[in-house]
Amino acid sequence: MNYGAIAAELLDRIRSTHPLIHHITNWVVMNDTANATLALGALPVMAHAREEVKEMVGAAGALVLNPGTLFPELVEAMVMAGTRANELGVPVVYDPVGVGATRYRSQTGERLLKELHMAVIRGNSGEIGALAGAGGVVRGVESVEGVAHPQVVARELALRRATVVAITGKRDILSDGKRVLGVDNGHEMLKTITGTGCMATTVVAIFCAVEPDKLIAATSALACYGLAAERAARATRGPGSFRSSLFDELYHMTPALLEKGTRVVPFA
Amino acid sequence: MNYGAIAAELLDRIRSTHPLIHHITNWVVMNDTANATLALGALPVMAHAREEVKEMVGAAGALVLNPGTLFPELVEAMVMAGTRANELGVPVVYDPVGVGATRYRSQTGERLLKELHMAVIRGNSGEIGALAGAGGVVRGVESVEGVAHPQVVARELALRRATVVAITGKRDILSDGKRVLGVDNGHEMLKTITGTGCMATTVVAIFCAVEPDKLIAATSALACYGLAAERAARATRGPGSFRSSLFDELYHMTPALLEKGTRVVPFA
Amino acid sequence: MNYGAIAAELLDRIRSTHPLIHHITNWVVMNDTANATLALGALPVMAHAREEVKEMVGAAGALVLNPGTLFPELVEAMVMAGTRANELGVPVVYDPVGVGATRYRSQTGERLLKELHMAVIRGNSGEIGALAGAGGVVRGVESVEGVAHPQVVARELALRRATVVAITGKRDILSDGKRVLGVDNGHEMLKTITGTGCMATTVVAIFCAVEPDKLIAATSALACYGLAAERAARATRGPGSFRSSLFDELYHMTPALLEKGTRVVPFA
Repeated sequence: MNYGAIAAELLDRIRSTHPLIHHITNWVVMNDTANATLALGALPVMAHAREEVKEMVGAAGALVLNPGTLFPELVEAMVMAGTRANELGVPVVYDPVGVGATRYRSQTGERLLKELHMAVIRGNSGEIGALAGAGGVVRGVESVEGVAHPQVVARELALRRATVVAITGKRDILSDGKRVLGVDNGHEMLKTITGTGCMATTVVAIFCAVEPDKLIAATSALACYGLAAERAARATRGPGSFRSSLFDELYHMTPALLEKGTRVVPFA
Repeated sequence: MNYGAIAAELLDRIRSTHPLIHHITNWVVMNDTANATLALGALPVMAHAREEVKEMVGAAGALVLNPGTLFPELVEAMVMAGTRANELGVPVVYDPVGVGATRYRSQTGERLLKELHMAVIRGNSGEIGALAGAGGVVRGVESVEGVAHPQVVARELALRRATVVAITGKRDILSDGKRVLGVDNGHEMLKTITGTGCMATTVVAIFCAVEPDKLIAATSALACYGLAAERAARATRGPGSFRSSLFDELYHMTPALLEKGTRVVPFA
Repeated sequence: MNYGAIAAELLDRIRSTHPLIHHITNWVVMNDTANATLALGALPVMAHAREEVKEMVGAAGALVLNPGTLFPELVEAMVMAGTRANELGVPVVYDPVGVGATRYRSQTGERLLKELHMAVIRGNSGEIGALAGAGGVVRGVESVEGVAHPQVVARELALRRATVVAITGKRDILSDGKRVLGVDNGHEMLKTITGTGCMATTVVAIFCAVEPDKLIAATSALACYGLAAERAARATRGPGSFRSSLFDELYHMTPALLEKGTRVVPFA
């Protein structure tokens, strides 16, 4: 398959349909994920009141659940919005921030997976390992010890949860339980600023809003985001200027650039 | 009237008196609106605890109410602070973020307008249309369908609510129920980053803190903000660098630049 | 003493041990303080749920308590996390944002100081003056009237609370109740963006995570942060570009640069 051509076509769909991406997300990165959404041509809305999330998600093309600064009322809002999204067929993209770091984060992860069907779960190797019971170690929100066999872990977790799992890192590994793909786009500068994982999740949600095959959507999204990071890193003096450039490059990403720059490796 | 000269004089007042602007605002843009306040020479404070908002607003030159990420306790704090501001004669500037997108947002808007006197209401065409019952359509926090006759809608809503209404867009339309003014400053790059409407509201509040004629204050504010955006867009590669430059240009705005660059059109 | 050499050695420790810095902090600056933590080579985690703060702080090298946007549940979480940190010997660094501006902020400050042992208290002159009962005046979160004799106030408050007090300003003044030190690093551009005091507190916490002598840790931290600001200001056009550059310079700070650039003045 020509993954670059597919990613390019999806970007084109985003730019012509401007899907609304409903975020129930953490306080740290809200501004960045909203700006990433706008830069790619979609529309962000951040709404977490239990009084409105069911109605808001009804207008959305995808729902992001990111409990990075979780607390009980926020988790309730996530369950409410996610349940409604499942009823309506709106794809739910889940970012298990810090799962494994505290019991509360792990229990919340289990609850969300039990009560909701996720279209995609995107996390770092430690988070996915903890979520899969495959041994990841998380310190704060950082993966300290990842899983030894990410292709196996991604495939098994995807199969068990009937979802797509995306483990991001130097090489991103994605699986829908059958197919396994790798994405080699990306840049190490992404590790120098906060919220780059959260932004990856947001970009995955944007692509999920325009493509029913969620493995293809997530793979295309991570190629697009990683390529923007590669381009942003070129003229960057450090994390502050890299962060500015990342939004510039998401904004200037074109289907042609993406088709040419996508680096996807099929494993199975 | 020489609107440029008036705007210049108001900017001079801000720079010499450093008014405190009390924000009860949304989580997404808090950092940006605080930085916009500092860049113009005023002082921001973000405080939403019901335990302190009445006391805090007593020290303020203006109060911003921006329920972009609203929830019940925050709305209560807005009513408490706004009531006290009304008692003390502190101008209240209201940003009806996402009114029209959900029933909860619309009901909250109605409640705030019923319980409080607003000095200025600033929103996009969809939000003001929804608030006025004039037919705006809002998706998330974006105006999808604006009002057909913004001058009429602004004037009638202003008259009915005894306030100043500012509809921002390609041409901003402002009215106090009698006079109608247009502002042609601004730049389309403002649509590429989140919180630019919220920052416009903050700038309106800053100008309201130094000028009793709220139509003149709001008009001058939008000219100043729009001119800074025009200047920021010149040396910008995309939304990330535009955002940085916008703060730089607000900081370097001078009364002389503003006097020369203000483009206000009187309609009635 | 060669304060530059000491600061350099501490920076080296941070870069090799990557301490986790648990923040319970305000909504305005979360993104900036997380990015400052990453830029210096430490790991940030923002977690405020009462369900997890005791467990999270157990993995941390230091705890930041910054009630800039305080409300009752957040203050409870601070007391819980701080109590556990005190039990475990994890240093607690307190930023009394806006103490003196409202009764609620002042009462919260008194409560936190009564229930917790702070390793370092870092504030501006007005906040520390209000906390010490030495006459500071705070408007919003800004020091309007500082203390007349900062060396005396810092020393006495440090002695009374068995802590280190750091009053930041043009010249930072620090004391552990016996020694008094001044830091002349810094730049006036720090006053043009929000959260620069909060970032100073975060940097102090990072240095406290690697050095038991908290006066030395805090002094080294403020020298490092101030030096980064000096370097960032060189190629800056205004507050927006200064903010980006500040992260770049924290990231590129080296032990050698810090050793050469540290300007510490011993007073007693």
